[in-house]
Amino acid sequence: PDGVALQGARDRNGQLTKPPGALGRLEDLAIWYAGWRGDPRPRIEAPQVIVFAGNHGVTAQGVSAFPAEVTVQMVANFKAGGAAINQLARVAGARMDVHALELDRPVADFTQGPAMSEAEALGAIRVGWQAVDPKADLLVVGEMGIGNTTSAAAIAHALYGGEASDWVGRGTGVDDAGLVNKTRVVAEGVARHARDGVDGIGILARLGGREIAAMAGAIAAARMLRIPVILDGFICTAAAACLEATHAGALDHTVAGHLSAEGAHVRLLEKLGKAPLLSLGLRLGEGSGAALAINVVKAATACHSGMATFAEAGVADG
Amino acid sequence: PDGVALQGARDRNGQLTKPPGALGRLEDLAIWYAGWRGDPRPRIEAPQVIVFAGNHGVTAQGVSAFPAEVTVQMVANFKAGGAAINQLARVAGARMDVHALELDRPVADFTQGPAMSEAEALGAIRVGWQAVDPKADLLVVGEMGIGNTTSAAAIAHALYGGEASDWVGRGTGVDDAGLVNKTRVVAEGVARHARDGVDGIGILARLGGREIAAMAGAIAAARMLRIPVILDGFICTAAAACLEATHAGALDHTVAGHLSAEGAHVRLLEKLGKAPLLSLGLRLGEGSGAALAINVVKAATACHSGMATFAEAGVADG
Repeated sequence: PDGVALQGARDRNGQLTKPPGALGRLEDLAIWYAGWRGDPRPRIEAPQVIVFAGNHGVTAQGVSAFPAEVTVQMVANFKAGGAAINQLARVAGARMDVHALELDRPVADFTQGPAMSEAEALGAIRVGWQAVDPKADLLVVGEMGIGNTTSAAAIAHALYGGEASDWVGRGTGVDDAGLVNKTRVVAEGVARHARDGVDGIGILARLGGREIAAMAGAIAAARMLRIPVILDGFICTAAAACLEATHAGALDHTVAGHLSAEGAHVRLLEKLGKAPLLSLGLRLGEGSGAALAINVVKAATACHSGMATFAEAGVADG
Repeated sequence: PDGVALQGARDRNGQLTKPPGALGRLEDLAIWYAGWRGDPRPRIEAPQVIVFAGNHGVTAQGVSAFPAEVTVQMVANFKAGGAAINQLARVAGARMDVHALELDRPVADFTQGPAMSEAEALGAIRVGWQAVDPKADLLVVGEMGIGNTTSAAAIAHALYGGEASDWVGRGTGVDDAGLVNKTRVVAEGVARHARDGVDGIGILARLGGREIAAMAGAIAAARMLRIPVILDGFICTAAAACLEATHAGALDHTVAGHLSAEGAHVRLLEKLGKAPLLSLGLRLGEGSGAALAINVVKAATACHSGMATFAEAGVADG
């Protein structure tokens, strides 16, 4: 972040017509945003939501409540404007882009071998990197991929250890037996690749999916472009965690948009030291929770940059 | 609420292209909203934010960190567009109205006698009632009034008992000594009027203020007009609690927009059985937290009414 802009934003915040601290987290958000944009009085005018889709060979293990063809069907729904994320992007005034990554060629079942080669993973990261509009001023990345909470749980388990069951949740809604099976799959997959180390890119490749790698690529590109990012739920946060594993501080330009109802999200956010802005029980993916948080960040900057100071308004400052 | 619209909304919710329950509280919000609007597929197009302002004789007791003239100064700021609520209403796409209620004639110091006569209180309730635009489809009421967290604490203490200190917080930012003084003032005021009973309108009159009574009037009018209401923080919730005290269920058309950082708000919401949508540490009043929640309710109805069904989108429903 830009130290001059940060200090300018802090100074401005102290002069606005409100008791000190009365806007709570909105004040911190506005200052954080100002620092990353290098502008002590920023506006948000061009948020971008990107949804990446990918398919997962691990669905052969029966880990999802929905069949794998739902990924391609939902991509059509995104393109037709019928999904939740379309409505949420519209309410947030955000541009929305959809990138389907080789849906007819699922990544391999990670219990049998690496999901992707490192070259394949880097290709997907590049898709994400290039999907970011350099003119965007706020970014949300979301995903669609039947089976991808299994992949995200495996990533989290590989990065942070513990038990597989610490990281496995019900995804789109598996039953108790499904949860047991999913936990077995994650444990087997992580055990299989454990000797290969915990570098972020390697874990993305071995246990991830193309849409997860693309999310990581987009988040990394946003850092270079000084575009603040709102993280979505469990899968997006797992993608982000792979970046943090490669370089501590790699997520400083991101904020956690919401706490997902997917059980292990709270644990993942704790590992990253991120406090979610919203907690409304969403567990949909697609970028939905983060898109819902766009208006919170917009509101924060609107207050920060649009309010009068005590001097301007002729208000006694206590 | 309209039972047919409620059932229609529930049926529609079950057919949308998402796993059951995956939009969490957004689903409940949309169904609640649909019931009150009598429309199973509603849109929010005309939210209204109304800010009521009033002055309080109890400021003579040194209960606020800001001087009483700030009320009139902030009303000028609202009218000039420089306050937080102006920015938040704009981000929410809401119309905003400001009603200043006899600022040159503060209500009486409730430690010395009733703040208002019942006739005065009813006059203020009427101002609130008439301020609601019958064409609005979502309502936020906010307030400005130096000294009014003291008044709200007294209302809550009178309605719900406990100790005065259970209901007193720092408001705009009193120090420790100020908090002790404020607690004494609330205890004395409530004790003075205790023999007069706990009817909601009487308590509004004896311990409230014109802006607080006006908020209650607007919330009651919205019920008649079938306009759902988002409650703001401590003072707004205290006004609403007076309605609930007159008639159980009087707040069924309302949702708690946020949890204020004003200490006793959490307790007040518990008494009303309301779970806040947001918790971002705001403690500003003006309707700010509720205005921030407008886009959450908008997002809920946008998803509900705008999403494709499984059949429409050709998506397998698990």
